[in-house]
Formats: sequence, structure tokens, C-alpha cells
Amino acid sequence: MLSVDLNSDLGEGFGAYRCGDDDAMLSIVTSANVACGLHAGDPEVMARTFAIARERGVAVGAHPGFPDLWGFGRRRLPFSNGEIERLVAYQIGAATALAAYAGHRISYVKTHGALGNIACEERGVADAVARAIRAVDPGLALLANALTELVAAGEAAGLETHQEIYADRGYTETGQLISRSQPGAMIEDAEEAAARVLAMVEAGAVITAGGKHLSTPIRSICVHGDSDHAVATAGRVRERLEQAGIVLKSFRPMAT
Amino acid sequence: MLSVDLNSDLGEGFGAYRCGDDDAMLSIVTSANVACGLHAGDPEVMARTFAIARERGVAVGAHPGFPDLWGFGRRRLPFSNGEIERLVAYQIGAATALAAYAGHRISYVKTHGALGNIACEERGVADAVARAIRAVDPGLALLANALTELVAAGEAAGLETHQEIYADRGYTETGQLISRSQPGAMIEDAEEAAARVLAMVEAGAVITAGGKHLSTPIRSICVHGDSDHAVATAGRVRERLEQAGIVLKSFRPMAT
Amino acid sequence: MLSVDLNSDLGEGFGAYRCGDDDAMLSIVTSANVACGLHAGDPEVMARTFAIARERGVAVGAHPGFPDLWGFGRRRLPFSNGEIERLVAYQIGAATALAAYAGHRISYVKTHGALGNIACEERGVADAVARAIRAVDPGLALLANALTELVAAGEAAGLETHQEIYADRGYTETGQLISRSQPGAMIEDAEEAAARVLAMVEAGAVITAGGKHLSTPIRSICVHGDSDHAVATAGRVRERLEQAGIVLKSFRPMAT
Amino acid sequence: MLSVDLNSDLGEGFGAYRCGDDDAMLSIVTSANVACGLHAGDPEVMARTFAIARERGVAVGAHPGFPDLWGFGRRRLPFSNGEIERLVAYQIGAATALAAYAGHRISYVKTHGALGNIACEERGVADAVARAIRAVDPGLALLANALTELVAAGEAAGLETHQEIYADRGYTETGQLISRSQPGAMIEDAEEAAARVLAMVEAGAVITAGGKHLSTPIRSICVHGDSDHAVATAGRVRERLEQAGIVLKSFRPMAT
Repeated sequence: MLSVDLNSDLGEGFGAYRCGDDDAMLSIVTSANVACGLHAGDPEVMARTFAIARERGVAVGAHPGFPDLWGFGRRRLPFSNGEIERLVAYQIGAATALAAYAGHRISYVKTHGALGNIACEERGVADAVARAIRAVDPGLALLANALTELVAAGEAAGLETHQEIYADRGYTETGQLISRSQPGAMIEDAEEAAARVLAMVEAGAVITAGGKHLSTPIRSICVHGDSDHAVATAGRVRERLEQAGIVLKSFRPMAT
Repeated sequence: MLSVDLNSDLGEGFGAYRCGDDDAMLSIVTSANVACGLHAGDPEVMARTFAIARERGVAVGAHPGFPDLWGFGRRRLPFSNGEIERLVAYQIGAATALAAYAGHRISYVKTHGALGNIACEERGVADAVARAIRAVDPGLALLANALTELVAAGEAAGLETHQEIYADRGYTETGQLISRSQPGAMIEDAEEAAARVLAMVEAGAVITAGGKHLSTPIRSICVHGDSDHAVATAGRVRERLEQAGIVLKSFRPMAT
Repeated sequence: MLSVDLNSDLGEGFGAYRCGDDDAMLSIVTSANVACGLHAGDPEVMARTFAIARERGVAVGAHPGFPDLWGFGRRRLPFSNGEIERLVAYQIGAATALAAYAGHRISYVKTHGALGNIACEERGVADAVARAIRAVDPGLALLANALTELVAAGEAAGLETHQEIYADRGYTETGQLISRSQPGAMIEDAEEAAARVLAMVEAGAVITAGGKHLSTPIRSICVHGDSDHAVATAGRVRERLEQAGIVLKSFRPMAT
Repeated sequence: MLSVDLNSDLGEGFGAYRCGDDDAMLSIVTSANVACGLHAGDPEVMARTFAIARERGVAVGAHPGFPDLWGFGRRRLPFSNGEIERLVAYQIGAATALAAYAGHRISYVKTHGALGNIACEERGVADAVARAIRAVDPGLALLANALTELVAAGEAAGLETHQEIYADRGYTETGQLISRSQPGAMIEDAEEAAARVLAMVEAGAVITAGGKHLSTPIRSICVHGDSDHAVATAGRVRERLEQAGIVLKSFRPMAT
């Protein structure tokens, strides 16, 4: 019986600023990537998100990004690999503590935004992320975009490494996300997104824009939490997978 | 044989900004209270401070404060007790992770500046600090000003709680720090500070401005790290204690 | 013929974070209080808000608050009067420059959130705000809650001072806003809010919860921009005033 | 009779953090480039720096940088030209207001750190800086590194544009600063720095590492304020120029 995880970036509010409908999303996803206060999130939002996730049996991961609240972690900041290691370590620690405070426990790390993009492309950055995780807690898993340098770095570092695909993004012939500036980058239609996800999970492969199948173990599907129809799309993806008999569950047993 | 710990607030730089001579202080103190990035410090400074402390066999503690870099944590910010709990948890987590990253391990928590002052005065805030520590890691000790609400809260929460005195401050007849706006608040002369510290450690009591002895177990002495003659004063305090045959060591065995 | 201004706090987003429907509000109000980047807003949001206001003929004011993005300027921070003067000056300058950049010109200052509350209550703080305005540009008007210390301070400083009422708040027998923790503080119904505003404008008086009329020149009405029915309430207030033959216009001729 | 200006980056502290000996430098320089709160400085530091400069008859300029306190404005952040325009406008406004508050008046703008470096290299960024100045106050002068894109942009925008050289840096054969990673980049010896400055001012030319003279009107000399021997070097440069009969004065008459 096939199973797969459904993850989303949550806890991205800050103070009075709200971002997405976390409450609704936490009833759909099986894993929540929780922002750690540097590009989004604050101790209040973090504790609240961890607490709801615990109640709903949703696994949680630290979701570190660049220290850039203004840019929401989407700007490619020129940090050295060493600085990135320490930035990631800092954020894993903060998330670990607030999860414990909320009676939950983080079980994985997933990098956010520009930091995630760079880590997928550059092995040096990917290694820095992997080193930070191993140094802070080698028992944490790494969740990374399928077929990227970050997957390779996680495996080389001996981390339990899981691959994810994006429900709403197209893939190049080498299995990378099509750049947002190119046609075919975004899958806006919920039905189409759900169908693609199902096809990839059943095929055990990333399916490129040209229709090529790139085999790789797909353990999780990322759905966005902050767009207007985020909840509808995520719900539709989940529904479609369940109708096909695929079990939705975290790639890691919850450890609370 | 008497022993006592010598602690100082270190790692208080931020980016290009330096604060005090950490390197010199880390050769004098036996415990370093390391800022966690919200009122001072950043991941780079934290990792560096933890690494040097490890090399020198200096114990390290998380030193959480209010999120107020501009005010250096010295402004009394109006956070609720619940918010304080989460702020403290966040910072303990960040310090724990960066200490691990640097091959060290934090063994205690000491609150900084205005947060520390309020926690010493108000039992509700003191309880919030204690709850945060217990939630994140009940194995961490609490280092608190002698004879304060924070000591009581730590003990009530079942935390290993240690009392400290300040080398350069005068004490009221109830054993509280004399307010900086009052005469007798500051002991500026290194020789006098060292003599007072020695007298209190030998007496096992806080000695008030009026000469009263308030018995309490003094396990640590706080010396400041960021004034102009910080290093000289700290060195003189250490020297004086050693000449009197008192052993300088952390109140906790180092756990690395 | 009676005329009155309709003002709202706008430009309160920050980076990716949105706050309220500025575009809709800028078609309803006659004055926009624009956040200056310390409690909300950023240079991008400011420039955009000033540009739309200019296109629509909406007057603009600097809306300085405490430097507290996390608290959205709603925390009462312990700044000295001197520090408040400099904080207000800084923000007026930033707003002046970005308004000029957008081809507009700020014509008044209104304090935000906790800073505004304190300035209405404490004459020392009110004087600090007035001094900052006069030092930076004595030609700027001050917009302040009717019957408060801030009105008195503005007049004493020789500033052109205008009084406003809140559409959705009840008033005590001395003309102060009823504290949010008390019954009668909030007028949630749009129809009731509109009716009350009309009554006060026509009476030329603040009408208290007990029905007392406190005469004072009401030059502006503040409607909130960030609640769920902000646009509907603001629109209804405007409609009701126009139906009664009251002209909606800025309390100051626009100077672009 | 030759005259030249001596400028330095001042007001670069932040809260409790000090940076350089501003008081001493303000007795040596004739122009102070004052940080505007985004990469360094805060309203307190700004007001204090402007006030001392006014007392001493030192001209002041806004010294905008990237919003990067942690990186002290030295990181090359990926902002668009439009964003840079608005960042620069914001900072000019803040400086204008605090100078007015302190009874002084800014007379020029000089970009800081990474923003300055990029503006000297890339015409698009240089134009953005020039547009921001012109939009906020076309009466402000632009102070820019000699022989750079920024000089060209300032002149093209119709701004009063003045060229400066660095006392402690070597120049390539095209008149650009030798990169810090190359030999000959830094002139560490105060005597040598003073001699070079004098030679360039007397020659009316940038003198390259290879000895080539690149004629250009040198109106100001930049001396650093934050290194260990900053005050000594700046003092020696001033002394040497005065001994040679060169008048030290701002490139702009002070407008207070």
C-alpha cells in the first residue's frame, strides 16, 4: 500500500501580520514546516503552530531561512557557507525548544525560500545545511526537493533524507523546478495539480514537462499555504490521493 | 575547601559591533553567560564564544533577554508572562543548538538585563522563566541573584537553582541590589570589589550596605565584561579569591 | 455648509505581509495616515501608498509609532520624552522624503497606537511630539484625538492642530475613548457607527456614552482600515455624511 | 589657494554599541557622513552627531546604506534599482529631519559600504541613487568616489557632484579602488597615507599604483573613523595638508 506525506510551510505570520489559514491547513497536511523567526514567524506563532499540530497529530519540522523578514526569506542573501551553517543551527535550536514547550517535537528540517533554492543548486550550501543538522541533532531527518544537491548532501552526511515534489510546479527535463519566469512553471489549476501529484506518486518518479519519468522515491508533497486558494488546492490534492487508495501520513512516525 | 564560580555576560557583540574583551574574560571566568541574539549576540558571535569557552574549559549558559537590540535588553518591555516564557524558550533553544554546533553544551540559564531585574522582583515573571527552562530542558540549572523571587521560583519548579552575587554592586538591608540611582549602588574600585566578594564568599552570606549578614549559599560571582576596567576587576577578584585558597570552578561539572 | 475629513491608518503592510485593503480605502477616505517603517510599513509600501493617494487626491500624513514591528506599535514602550522626540522626527523625515519621491507631500502628523495613546494622556509626551513636528517642519499640522493632552500640546506649540473622533469607539463622560476592556468601547455595527458620527459632526461635539455633548471643533473622523469590515464601515460612514449634505474633504488643502 | 574637504563616516554606533571616536573625529574632519539607521546609527546617535557637528562647524551629509545592521551595510544585497531609490530616499528624509531637529542641515549625500561600491560600478544603481536625491531634494550635493559611474550619474542628473579620494586605499590604473583582496589595496601607514593624499590634491589627479596621473577635480578626502588608529591617521592627513598651505573646508558652504 502506497503512502505519502503532505507538507506545507506554516507559522509564517509575524506579530499582528497573518499569513495563510494555518488552522485549515493543519487539518489537511501531515507535516508542517514551521518558520523559525528569522524570515517569518515569532515565538508566539511558533508555539501556537506547534501546539495545534500536536493536537491534530501533524508532524513538525524546522523551516529555517535567511534572516530577512522584509524579504520573507525570498532574497538570495550573500552569506558564506559557514554563516549559513550557524544560521540553520540557530533556527533548528529555536524550533526544537518551542516544539518542546508546546509538547511536540520536531522530526525534520526543510530549508525555506532563497536558502532552499540555493541549497538545491549548490553543493557547498547543501553541505552546510547538512552539517548544521548533524551538529545540532543527527536524529533529525532532512526533507529536500527531489533530485537536487540537497538530497545528495543529506545522504552523504548520513542524515535520513526524504524527497519531496511540489504540487503546483512544473519540472525541467533534469527534474529541477521550472523557473518562475518560464512558461509552465506554475500549475494553477487545483484539479491538474492533484492529477499530476497522483501520477508522480504512483509512478515513483518526477514527471518532467516533456513527459519523461525520472525515478526517485517520493516521500512527500509540498502544497503552498499562503496563496488565495491554498486550502482548496491542498484539500483537493489530499482527496485525490485518498481516492486512489494512497495513505496520507508523515514520512516519519511522530515522536512526541 | 571552599569553591565558587565566576561568571560574566559574554558574546554580546553583534555583527561588526564589538562589546568587551571576550577573549580576555574567557581566561578569567569559569562560566560564560552567552547572549542569544535578541538583545545582543548573533549566530556568529554565539558559535565563536561557545568554541572558545569549550577550549578553555569554561561552562556556558544561555543568557536570554528581551528582544531589544537597540536597548541592549535594558528596557523594561511590557511582555506578558506567557510571552516571556516563549521568548526564554526560544533563546534557550538557539543557545543549545549553537553550543552543540561548537562542540560544547549549555548547562544553565541566566536572565539578562531588564528581564532579569523583573524576574528577580516579580514572582509571576520568575515562574514564567522557570517554566520555560523546565519545558525546554529540565536538566538545565538556573543561575539567579541571591535572595530573589527568581531563586524561589527556580526551587519551586524543581530546577537546580544556584545563587550569585555581584562583585561591583552594593546590597540593601533585604539583600537586593541597591538601585543604580542610589548612593552605594556601584563599587567602582577593583580592590574594594574583590575584598567584598571574598568576605561574602567566606561568610556564606550577602553583606548589606549596613553590614548585616544574610546567610545564603553563594555559588557564583558575577563580574561585568563590558566596562573599561572589566578585565582588570575580574582578574583582581579571581586573584584575591585564589590567594585566600578558594577554588574557582563552575557550579556545575562541564558536560560536553 | 459643513465639511469634515475622513482619515484612516494605511500603508501598514511590511514586505510580503499585507494589512487591510488600502486600495479600496483610498477611494473612500480624504486623508491617509501612512506608517513610517518602524511599527509597520516599509519604503516600498510607503511610496506606493503615497503615489495612489496623490492620484486620488487624498491628503497624506506621517503616522509615526514606536519602533516595534513585532507589536505593530501597540506596546507601550518605555522611551523617554527625548527619545520620543527623535523617533517622531526620524519618521516624519522618512515620510516627507518618500511622499516627495512619489510626487505628493505630507501635510500633517498623527501618532500611532501606543505612542498615540500615551501622547493623548501625558502632557510631557504630547509636548515631545509637538516639539518634534515643530523642529522638523512647523508648517505641518497635527491631527489628534479630540479633547486630549495632545490637542493642548499642539496648540501650545503653535501648530495648526485639528481634532478627530473615532467612528467605532464610545466616549467617556470626559470625552476620552472608553478603554477596550470596558463595555461600550467598541461600536461594531456600521449603521450605528455612521449614525453616531453624523450626530457628533452635526452637533460639533463629542457625544459621551451618557449622552452628554462636549463641544469641540471636529475636523476629522477616523475609520479603521485593517478589520474585516473596515471598507464597508468606512463606506457607510462616508455615505451617511454625504446624504446629510456634509462635504467630505481634507482638513487641509492638498499641497502637491 | 588650494582647498579640500576631509570627510569621514560617523554616527555609526547603535544603542549601546559604540563605533569609533566620533567626538575626536569631529574635531578633525570638515564633513561628516552620518549613518541613517538602516545599516548603522539610530535616532539618538544621529541627533547627537548632528548637534556636535553643528557646534564645530562641520558640514553633514546623509550616508544611506543597505538595511543590514547585522552586516553593517557591507553585504551586497540583491535589491532592485527601484528598491534602492526608495531606500535612499527614506534615509535622506530621516537624516534631513534629525539634522533639522539638531539645528543643522544636511548638504550632501554619500552612499555607504556595499551600496556605495555597487553604485560606483553599475550605472543603473548609480542612476537610482541620483534619482532618489533629486526627487527628495535637488539642492543636495552628491559626494562620490572619483572617476566612477556614480560621478557620471550625479552629473547627468544635474546634481552638484563632488569627487573624493580615499586616504588609505590604492588605485588601479583606471582609477578604481584596488580590491581589498589584492596587494596594495590598503595604505596602513599614516605618514604614507598623508603623503599620497597631499600628492593627489596638489596634482589634481588620482595617482594609480603604477604612478599614472588621472586628472579629475578632487574636492574631498575620505578618512576612516572606525579603525584603531583612525584618529591618528585623520589627524596626520589634516596636519600634512595644512603644512602644505592647503585650506581644509567643506566642499559646500554650511547651511544651517
